[in-house]
Amino acid sequence: MRLPLRSCFFFRSFIAQKQTADAQKRGLSGAGMRLVQFRHSGEGDCVRVGVEQSDGQGVVDLKAFDPSMPSTVRELLQLGDKGLEFAQRALASGQCVVDRANIQLLPPILAPEKVVCVGMNYRDHCLEQNAPIPKEPIIFSKFPSALTGPYDDIILPPESQEVDWEVELAFVIGRRGKHIKEEDALSYVAGFTVANDVSARDWQMRRNGKQWLLSKTFDSFCPLGPALVTADAVNDPHNLGIRCLVNGDTVQSSNTSQMIFKTAALIAWVSQIVTLTPGDVFLTGTPPGVGVFRNPPIFLKKGDVVECQIDQLGSIINKVI
Amino acid sequence: MRLPLRSCFFFRSFIAQKQTADAQKRGLSGAGMRLVQFRHSGEGDCVRVGVEQSDGQGVVDLKAFDPSMPSTVRELLQLGDKGLEFAQRALASGQCVVDRANIQLLPPILAPEKVVCVGMNYRDHCLEQNAPIPKEPIIFSKFPSALTGPYDDIILPPESQEVDWEVELAFVIGRRGKHIKEEDALSYVAGFTVANDVSARDWQMRRNGKQWLLSKTFDSFCPLGPALVTADAVNDPHNLGIRCLVNGDTVQSSNTSQMIFKTAALIAWVSQIVTLTPGDVFLTGTPPGVGVFRNPPIFLKKGDVVECQIDQLGSIINKVI
Repeated sequence: MRLPLRSCFFFRSFIAQKQTADAQKRGLSGAGMRLVQFRHSGEGDCVRVGVEQSDGQGVVDLKAFDPSMPSTVRELLQLGDKGLEFAQRALASGQCVVDRANIQLLPPILAPEKVVCVGMNYRDHCLEQNAPIPKEPIIFSKFPSALTGPYDDIILPPESQEVDWEVELAFVIGRRGKHIKEEDALSYVAGFTVANDVSARDWQMRRNGKQWLLSKTFDSFCPLGPALVTADAVNDPHNLGIRCLVNGDTVQSSNTSQMIFKTAALIAWVSQIVTLTPGDVFLTGTPPGVGVFRNPPIFLKKGDVVECQIDQLGSIINKVI
Repeated sequence: MRLPLRSCFFFRSFIAQKQTADAQKRGLSGAGMRLVQFRHSGEGDCVRVGVEQSDGQGVVDLKAFDPSMPSTVRELLQLGDKGLEFAQRALASGQCVVDRANIQLLPPILAPEKVVCVGMNYRDHCLEQNAPIPKEPIIFSKFPSALTGPYDDIILPPESQEVDWEVELAFVIGRRGKHIKEEDALSYVAGFTVANDVSARDWQMRRNGKQWLLSKTFDSFCPLGPALVTADAVNDPHNLGIRCLVNGDTVQSSNTSQMIFKTAALIAWVSQIVTLTPGDVFLTGTPPGVGVFRNPPIFLKKGDVVECQIDQLGSIINKVI
């Protein structure tokens, strides 16, 4: 796949067509929803919450349907079941539909209290770097300022020469909890989405006292989306094909079944330490195939296009600038 | 100092008297202000912004003075100079003063986008652990959920047996910036305050793949306050006595002049990586005297009282429960 990247317009048209085709293949049914955040083109910074129509054609604008509704998915989640029921009603109405070509998709969560990340969480990724399988999750974080939209650019910082890709299954917390038991944990998940845990390997491996934070949190280093797919719309989040393509070449291809610590275990583990709140984002680790462990290593350069795909969830496509 | 801790009432009275005495000693003058966040006793979760009167007696309630004013210091900072000018006017009016005995002080910043922490940033703290002086800042983070009020309890988690104290100078960002030059950096500082970077040493040194995040971010592991002292009220933030007392015994005593990377250098360093925004909190590292490097090591236990003091800024006093 070689993308027509000469202009933003071509890129946006390509994305819109791809989304429609993807949605038609997926054929979502039941109560499951795909929640998005977006801006109307030319309307400044105003964030809206939307629900994707199941045919992938349009997005229902919740605030246009009812001006009293929240402007962000985080606020919608804070309303609990009521928020989701409202979104269902708006979707069912078939009203207030906006065309994908006229909106810019944002990450489905903005300004979460936490972006919790997990390192070394795929068996096959541990093997590729000759690292032992961890006995406990290894947790680090990004600042929320790293979040960027599903089709936004990844900004290559001059401070790093070794920027790498990491496709990851992400999930978002739907309700507040502490010391959550593993058997109850899935009821705390609002939904799933796709992330790219972009990483500056020089900073991760040789700088900052080997604390990973800075390497992971450059602005734009967390593309997320395209939608928050509600948990009831995902058959089994731990049996999904997960792939990363760079300039159309598949560089990572695995299955979320390879995760060492799965969604429920991660929630139980982290919630023994911190109170989780609606909107908290978890990135659950990456499969093998990252650039730094190739021989010779490969890193992202200006003009590259990175696509992260997870079955049932969709694709995020980000150009490196 | 042995505190009369038998009841919340006695503790609150003690704190209020101590604040008044401290303020009278400090004798704040000029445009400098001490911004606080508080709740009126018995009024639920409603957060208010206040400005301390210079005699330490009362706190001017900004929202009572003008209901259109923000409810949080972060929002006030987002207004820029206008916000601070408004707070000045409210203070000068002498109206809408609430008694310290009738309020609960919160951390002076809630829900920041970032809590940026610096490790190994005092020369004398590096020496006590035989560690080399870092050539670059070592940056890690806490989640905002770790923040707690200046007189709130530190909750000893059953998951750690080695909880330790770290008094630290904290500063808060007042305006948005990226790639900030060191010579401009101080103009991005809204003010200074006192923090305790409470740390679970077992988690920091032996667990979580030696990524420090979890050890530092248990709920309640970041007491902060008592006030955000605006930058113009602090003569020289890098010439302040800094002390920690546990049950009245001085365990840390140094001067912020010992910091390796000072305020401006830290802002320049971190802003090469991430965009800073109003309300971002920086904890700038701790001087020697922490419990883990004592022989034998000493850790906090239930009933201990930890007081962190910085000249001109004040004290935070937290009971360990």
